[in-house]
Amino acid sequence: MSAPRAIRWNGAAVDAIPATSRGLHYGDGVFRTMLQIVGTIVDVDAQIAKLRHDATALGLVPPALDALRSELASVADLGDATVKLLLIRAGSGRGYRPETDEADRLLLAYEPPRAATTTPFDGLRVIRSPVTMAAQPRLAGIKHLNRLEQVLASRDWPDGTDDAILGDDRGVPVCATRGNVFWVQDGRLNTPAIDRCGVAGVMRDKVLAAAEALDLPCRIAAQPWPLLMAADEAFLCNSLRGIQPIQRLDDRLFGAPGPVTRRLIRHLAHPTLPSR
Amino acid sequence: MSAPRAIRWNGAAVDAIPATSRGLHYGDGVFRTMLQIVGTIVDVDAQIAKLRHDATALGLVPPALDALRSELASVADLGDATVKLLLIRAGSGRGYRPETDEADRLLLAYEPPRAATTTPFDGLRVIRSPVTMAAQPRLAGIKHLNRLEQVLASRDWPDGTDDAILGDDRGVPVCATRGNVFWVQDGRLNTPAIDRCGVAGVMRDKVLAAAEALDLPCRIAAQPWPLLMAADEAFLCNSLRGIQPIQRLDDRLFGAPGPVTRRLIRHLAHPTLPSR
Repeated sequence: MSAPRAIRWNGAAVDAIPATSRGLHYGDGVFRTMLQIVGTIVDVDAQIAKLRHDATALGLVPPALDALRSELASVADLGDATVKLLLIRAGSGRGYRPETDEADRLLLAYEPPRAATTTPFDGLRVIRSPVTMAAQPRLAGIKHLNRLEQVLASRDWPDGTDDAILGDDRGVPVCATRGNVFWVQDGRLNTPAIDRCGVAGVMRDKVLAAAEALDLPCRIAAQPWPLLMAADEAFLCNSLRGIQPIQRLDDRLFGAPGPVTRRLIRHLAHPTLPSR
Repeated sequence: MSAPRAIRWNGAAVDAIPATSRGLHYGDGVFRTMLQIVGTIVDVDAQIAKLRHDATALGLVPPALDALRSELASVADLGDATVKLLLIRAGSGRGYRPETDEADRLLLAYEPPRAATTTPFDGLRVIRSPVTMAAQPRLAGIKHLNRLEQVLASRDWPDGTDDAILGDDRGVPVCATRGNVFWVQDGRLNTPAIDRCGVAGVMRDKVLAAAEALDLPCRIAAQPWPLLMAADEAFLCNSLRGIQPIQRLDDRLFGAPGPVTRRLIRHLAHPTLPSR
């Protein structure tokens, strides 16, 4: 993965951030990773709304909507890009207790994601992670900077693996390291509830809205692994790549993208990514 | 809390760290906070051993013992200090999957801790935190950079609070935000097991060793809150302050430090801190 094409700290171009940042020392911040196509961030208002919501959940006062929109606009000239925006609690003192509710902003723009890991793309190769997500309802759904479980889950997976789905301490699937999981059974959509752990992505909301628009029933609930493994179709989704069908989950082969997945992909009309 | 008196990144004096650091983005690293008195770090070998152990638990190759000793020696000229050493997974790419097992080193030296929050010191005022620690056995005991639970626990405590003890999802006390907890009942020492969550501090090991040397029986186990609340004596401990008696835990008053606590304090002979 290449180096960032732009880095801004509170609007100023930088290479580095304060060594005392609470983001580094405690993970005391939140972030969103976004897709910019031809200078426009996809779903920018939804992304900003989620970022501000998550900041508030950590007790941070998020910058105003317009300020964040301007911040993001500062990398529009890069055209296609992966844009990551972090809100990090300000303050440089030692000690867990916050000195302020103000947030610093860190913006990084990278190369855009590539279209697929195989050409032609025939779906994701996914595993069930041996890492179990800890249940912390106070942080569930929030995209915060404490991401060691995702690191652990991705550290040891076999070569050729695209992602891993993590379960929780009750033994039900929750989400992948890089997106949310959905499956289809008997024409009905299913996705785990994100109320004890896991991240609630913008694309998850979009898929849920698309299902409603398409009159597709969806069950949002904790459901055991065997239901996912026995599904007719399964996919992951995130803001960079939209919906990506799962081709293989451990030794379960799903084959070609199913009809419900294809309907949702068409409805969402996620921008086509540059091929590699 | 004042700014650091020295900051070194891989041995070089800096003010800032790379904006792409995995420490910031994921908390992918470990740390230890140490007490330096007249240029000497207290329990330096035990601290380095714990740091290297924790790094290995995250899949990092820790720098050699001698390299870390030299690193720490670079701030010896500051005399009395609080010294924090972080090992952070190297690599600057985007994405959870590590590119390397190598670690960058970040060293910060601050003013030494002050002797006490009240003069004369009459013990800590502690609360039971409403924040429950999530159980993640893969990270239990490790002093890693995912510390949002400690931030949440210390964010809202009442003024005049010195620390908060967090319990786990089974409703048993585990540890304080800044140290481990012990209590004495009928002449016997008790401390929670750190096998599902929480940090295992160097000072906790020293207290356990001291108890053995003093023929003091100690039970290391998950035990319910009422046993702690009904204890004869209770204290917190960490590497900066040694043993600090708990004067008050919520509305339970423990009064003056008890005889077992005083024996342990004498045995440990933690250096006297500068008074404010």
